Amino acid sequence: MALAALLALAVPAQAQTDPLPSWNDGAAKQAIIGFVTETTTPGSLQFVPPAERIATFDQDGTLWVEHPMYSQVMYILERVPALVKAKPELAKVAPYSTVLEILRGDRAAIAKLTLPDLEKLAAATLTGMPVDTFNAEVKKWLAEAKDPRWKKPYTELTYLPMQEVLNYLRDNGYKTWIVTGGGQDFVRQYSEQVYGIPREQVVGTASGTKYGYAKDGKPFLTKEAKLLLNDNNAGKPEGIHLMVGRRPVLAVGNSTGDRQMLEYTKAGDGARLSMIVLHDDATREYAYGPAQGLPATKIGAFTQALYDQATKQRWTVISMKNDWKRIFAWEP
Amino acid sequence: MALAALLALAVPAQAQTDPLPSWNDGAAKQAIIGFVTETTTPGSLQFVPPAERIATFDQDGTLWVEHPMYSQVMYILERVPALVKAKPELAKVAPYSTVLEILRGDRAAIAKLTLPDLEKLAAATLTGMPVDTFNAEVKKWLAEAKDPRWKKPYTELTYLPMQEVLNYLRDNGYKTWIVTGGGQDFVRQYSEQVYGIPREQVVGTASGTKYGYAKDGKPFLTKEAKLLLNDNNAGKPEGIHLMVGRRPVLAVGNSTGDRQMLEYTKAGDGARLSMIVLHDDATREYAYGPAQGLPATKIGAFTQALYDQATKQRWTVISMKNDWKRIFAWEP
Repeated sequence: MALAALLALAVPAQAQTDPLPSWNDGAAKQAIIGFVTETTTPGSLQFVPPAERIATFDQDGTLWVEHPMYSQVMYILERVPALVKAKPELAKVAPYSTVLEILRGDRAAIAKLTLPDLEKLAAATLTGMPVDTFNAEVKKWLAEAKDPRWKKPYTELTYLPMQEVLNYLRDNGYKTWIVTGGGQDFVRQYSEQVYGIPREQVVGTASGTKYGYAKDGKPFLTKEAKLLLNDNNAGKPEGIHLMVGRRPVLAVGNSTGDRQMLEYTKAGDGARLSMIVLHDDATREYAYGPAQGLPATKIGAFTQALYDQATKQRWTVISMKNDWKRIFAWEP
Repeated sequence: MALAALLALAVPAQAQTDPLPSWNDGAAKQAIIGFVTETTTPGSLQFVPPAERIATFDQDGTLWVEHPMYSQVMYILERVPALVKAKPELAKVAPYSTVLEILRGDRAAIAKLTLPDLEKLAAATLTGMPVDTFNAEVKKWLAEAKDPRWKKPYTELTYLPMQEVLNYLRDNGYKTWIVTGGGQDFVRQYSEQVYGIPREQVVGTASGTKYGYAKDGKPFLTKEAKLLLNDNNAGKPEGIHLMVGRRPVLAVGNSTGDRQMLEYTKAGDGARLSMIVLHDDATREYAYGPAQGLPATKIGAFTQALYDQATKQRWTVISMKNDWKRIFAWEP
């Protein structure tokens, strides 16, 4: 009798808790809650067994801010002074000299960096060192670096509504994965602390490592420049197959680099949810497309063709402006 | 009062349960129980936080039988009749014709297969098809194929003592991984059902996939012949870094292909346990080395040099004959 009363009290209490308090009521919030409820209620036609509950999230522009520049590119640029300190002759050689200008405050100089420049800088700052050395360098940078607009560590620029979705999914037996064009080893340095996502559930652009021995005979791994996985575009579903081995049932992205992951997810049998974040909030964050007449960008472009595909294939478009009540946890 | 009595009863009952009933008392069993107890007891000097509790297991010869031939090689050979049915001209071409002889009962013909032959057969049976087609072919074979000695499905030839170790580790917050020289996609078809290890915790030799679209526009992945990861020897720690992103605290293997994984694991800071299975039981399973004067083999060789390294670096050698009370779950 006492137990029955307790259960009777417990059930409505649970049902009344909003798992997504930072979301405004609307189609996006309803789509998420409806999907999770349908796929996890035993007996539901859309029920998904726990082992198949795989949810994949792009990172840059989906889980955290990617403007004015991807955080990892800032890491690459801000590592250059240490490279120059170790090899002073680099100070006068492009692209290192260009980066030093940018860091001295000449922001316009960033436009001088070509893609081959960035690849050269990435190879110099992300490869060639022992894995443990790289990990320590990233952790040090994360503790010190600040975003130029909000003057906060990059790891505080994650979207609160998305953190709620990650928690809500995990509370319902989903495994949450990051599937990022960014560096796999880079993101793994903070994924656990920042998103509650363990290292092994981070799929990213990955270079190989090489096994070897230190002078004292201790084995260790060195990061190599050899690209194993370019985790962008078609590389996202290919990376998901390599690392997860299943088609996701839910995927979230925000740009053309996520197209294949979103269409691949949505095309699976049974219940599937693909969502795409539209950055349409110039006041609270940034506004860019060029979909829906928003300003064009080279960083995380969301084209009108992608918007049309989202509509046609019934992906859920998340409007940052309309769907998100709060964007950051530290906002009042 | 009633609750306290219940708890008082429950605690000793739990403590008295042997987590490894198929192991004989001895150094190996004590090493496992001691290690798990020390690394998971809060306050212990050797305590390992849950996120770092990574345990990696080789498969062939460590978790299941690998003699007279690796199961996946049997799959490759037994797929040949289907290839020949689709392309009858292959029946007269080596190595397909040789495989047909072997399957007709001429076991001696297996010696005629060279490594390039096997690579050609592997490419023909493991790549070139959609991922879903491959998965279905493997599942069908697993349901029908039988080991020649025990006339049982290969999936029933797993070692009961190792299944107990997997369960014991998971019960204590360890994530258990397979790190196999076998095909990652192949092993993923049964890892969950057979070992309780989800697909995403299988690291194996992996080829790339290619994203594309069917005639109806549906996206799908095709298995390619391009090798991404050769998960043997140094490829094992490299594969662990790619897929897990951490050095394991516990690793188990049985042959020269596991050497680097075992030394890499043992060389980490803090508590580490590396173990290696010695097949020294000709009666109940097989006996091969050539370590300790056991017969030499090309399948899963355990050399004397490896045995000496195990002794020097204090890996735990598991004697199948002396440490295992039962080998298979179906034994009386």
